[in-house]
Amino acid sequence: MRRTVRAAMAMELTFLGTGSAYPSPSRGASAVALRYEGECWLFDCGEGTQTQFMRSQLKAGKITKIFITHLHGDHLFGLPGLLCTMSLQSGSLLNKQPVEIYGPIGLRKFLRTSMELSHSQLVFPYVVHELVPTDDQCFPEEWREPCALKANDQLHPQELQGKTIYLNPQEDCYNLVTQEQFIIKAFKLFHRIPSFGFVIEERTRPGRLQTQKLKEMGVQPGPLYGKLKNGQTITLNNGVTICPMDVLEDPLPGRKICILGDCSRVVGDVSKNLCIDADVLVHEATLDDNQSDKAEEHGHCTPKTAAEFAKSCKVKRLVLTHFSQRYKPTALTNAGDDDVTELKTQAKLVLEGQEVTLAEDFMVIEIPLNKAKQQIISAH
Amino acid sequence: MRRTVRAAMAMELTFLGTGSAYPSPSRGASAVALRYEGECWLFDCGEGTQTQFMRSQLKAGKITKIFITHLHGDHLFGLPGLLCTMSLQSGSLLNKQPVEIYGPIGLRKFLRTSMELSHSQLVFPYVVHELVPTDDQCFPEEWREPCALKANDQLHPQELQGKTIYLNPQEDCYNLVTQEQFIIKAFKLFHRIPSFGFVIEERTRPGRLQTQKLKEMGVQPGPLYGKLKNGQTITLNNGVTICPMDVLEDPLPGRKICILGDCSRVVGDVSKNLCIDADVLVHEATLDDNQSDKAEEHGHCTPKTAAEFAKSCKVKRLVLTHFSQRYKPTALTNAGDDDVTELKTQAKLVLEGQEVTLAEDFMVIEIPLNKAKQQIISAH
Repeated sequence: MRRTVRAAMAMELTFLGTGSAYPSPSRGASAVALRYEGECWLFDCGEGTQTQFMRSQLKAGKITKIFITHLHGDHLFGLPGLLCTMSLQSGSLLNKQPVEIYGPIGLRKFLRTSMELSHSQLVFPYVVHELVPTDDQCFPEEWREPCALKANDQLHPQELQGKTIYLNPQEDCYNLVTQEQFIIKAFKLFHRIPSFGFVIEERTRPGRLQTQKLKEMGVQPGPLYGKLKNGQTITLNNGVTICPMDVLEDPLPGRKICILGDCSRVVGDVSKNLCIDADVLVHEATLDDNQSDKAEEHGHCTPKTAAEFAKSCKVKRLVLTHFSQRYKPTALTNAGDDDVTELKTQAKLVLEGQEVTLAEDFMVIEIPLNKAKQQIISAH
Repeated sequence: MRRTVRAAMAMELTFLGTGSAYPSPSRGASAVALRYEGECWLFDCGEGTQTQFMRSQLKAGKITKIFITHLHGDHLFGLPGLLCTMSLQSGSLLNKQPVEIYGPIGLRKFLRTSMELSHSQLVFPYVVHELVPTDDQCFPEEWREPCALKANDQLHPQELQGKTIYLNPQEDCYNLVTQEQFIIKAFKLFHRIPSFGFVIEERTRPGRLQTQKLKEMGVQPGPLYGKLKNGQTITLNNGVTICPMDVLEDPLPGRKICILGDCSRVVGDVSKNLCIDADVLVHEATLDDNQSDKAEEHGHCTPKTAAEFAKSCKVKRLVLTHFSQRYKPTALTNAGDDDVTELKTQAKLVLEGQEVTLAEDFMVIEIPLNKAKQQIISAH
C-alpha cells in the first residue's frame, strides 16, 4: 500500500523537444511532459510533438492539461495535430474530462481556426483558458492589444467555454489551478512576444498515521483514526489522551517545478519569488555566453543569465533547454561542431552547488519526494 | 551541353510522408516533392514535413510552389512551420519570387491566422491562390459554403493578393499555371471534404538543331539557326533550301505526372481524361481491399479502386501512398503485423502491364524523358 501511494506520487519530466526555432531530427521543437498522479501535463507543443510522444515511453492519450508558454510557432504549431491524434488514438475509451489548455490570449483563435478549417472533430471536449499579458512582457514593436487577439463567439463543437485569466496584481502572478494536492500558477517573462513561466507546487501532505503504534496502544481502525488524521486530539475510554503528533509520521513536503518559456528575463521580483527553492527549474539557454548580445536582441538567455536566476532562486536543479539547433546532442556532435557541453561549463561558473543538466530529447528526470526538506520540517 | 540540358530537365518525385491520418516515426504525414527545372514543388504538407525535408536529400529552401490537396490536418498542419523554417534557413539568399501556394478555399484564412497569431515574419513573399470547390466533391454533411471560408481583407505583411480560381466548366478542371514548358491543372476528387488532384504536364519541346549536319552543309551558327529552330524554311546564298524537319531532331514529348489527394473517386469523366497516359499517377490506397466498405465510408480508396482508375487512364506507373499507419514499411514489418505488400498484390490483380509501386518515406522516383512516346511521335 505504502509503495502504491509513493508510486502514485511519482513525478517525472520527459523532454520531448529541446531545440529552438524549428524541429530538427536531432532536437524536436519545444515540448516537455510532466508525468504526475497518473496524468500527463504538456508544456509547449512545437510541430512534431505528437511524433516525439510516439518515440518516447509516454502516451499522448494520458494528457489532461496543456500549457503553452507563448505563441511562437516552434512552441505552438504541433497543438492542433496533437489533439487530433489523441482523439484518433482514444478509440472507445472516451476521456470524459475536458483537456484543459492554458496559454496566452490568441491561443483560442489559433486553435479554433485550425480545428474548424481542417474539419477536425475530437472524441473528447477541450477548453482553452487564456492568460492576458501586460505590455511589460515584450518588445514594444511586437505588443498587440489583447482585445485584438480575441476569438469570435463561435465555439468549436468539442470546445467548452474557457476562462480569461488576468494578472493578480497582489501576487503578481496568474492563478491557474488550485487543487487539494497542488497549485499551478503562471508568471510573466520578457521575450520578443509575451511569454509565461509556470510553477507547479505540491502542497505539504499530512504525515501518515502510524497504525501499528495505534494498535499497540489498543486503538483499532475506526472513526478515531479519522479524527487523528484530521488533527484532533482523542481521549480513549480508559482516559488516555492521544495527540495527532504522537501518532502521525512527519508531514510530506511538496515538490516545486518551474518551467519557463522563452525569455531574456523574468518580469518582476515577486514573480521571481515563486521559483524560490524549486526542485527543478527548466530554463532556456538558446545561445552560449559569447553570444549574449545576440541572445538578448532576440529575447533569449544564455547559460550565465539562466544560472544567475537559478542561483538567486536557490533552486536545487537547473535544466537548460531550448538550444539553438547548432548545438547537437553530445552523441551526435562531430569534430568542429559547436559543443553543447560548453553551455554547461558556462552555467557552472555561476552556480553554487546547484546541479545543472543539459536537456536532450527523450531525457527523463525523476523528481523524488523531498526527504531533505522533510527532515528539516520534522526537526521543528 | 547536351548533358546539361538533359540534367536541367530531370524530374523526380520524393515521398516525404506516406502515412494517413497522422505522422508516425515510420510514415510521415502526407507530403510529396517534385523536383523539376531546379525547383522543388511540394504536394501537401502534413505536420513534420519540414523535418522530413531535413532527413531527405532535398532542400526546403528550393520550394517555389506548394499545392494542398485538401484541408485535413494531416495534409496541412506542417505548412506554417515549413514556411517559417524556409525563411530562417534562407539567410541572406533572399528568394525574391513569391512562394506560390495553391489549395482549397479556407487555406488563406488558416495560413494568415497561423502566421499572424504566431508573429511569424518571412524573408520572402508568398501568395495563396484558392480553388473554389463544388458541392459534388464531398459528403453533404461536411459541405461548407465557400463564402464562409473566405479570409478577411487584411493581408499578412509578406503575403501578396492571390487569385480565387473557379472550375472551368468547359474543361471541368481548374487552370493553375500556364508556362512555356508546362501547364498545371487541378481536378475534382470526392472525399469527406472537398479534395483535389493535380496534373503537371510538360509541353512537347521542339527537337534540337543538328548543328553538325548544318555545318557540313556549310551553314554556320547565326540568325539562320534561329529561323530553323522557329520552324522557318531557309534558303542559302547558293540557292539550296533547308526545311526545319531536315535538320531538327525529333520533338521531345512532355511527361505527365498526376498527384491525387485523398478520395474515394475522381469526380467526372472529363477530369479523368486529364490523367490519360500519365507517366506517373500518385494515388492513395488507405486500406486494403478487404476493408473497402470502411474505406468508402471514410472517403478513401483501396488498391483495387486505385488500380482500376490507373488502368482506365492507361498510366504507365501507379504509385500507391497514404497508407493507414497499421501498414509499416516492409523493412519495419514484424511477424503478425499487417503486410503492406498485400496492397501491391491487390493492385496487380487489376492492372494490365502497368507498373505499381508502394511508396515509402524518402523513396525517390525518377521520371525519365519519354523515349517510347518520342519514337511514336517521330514515326508520324
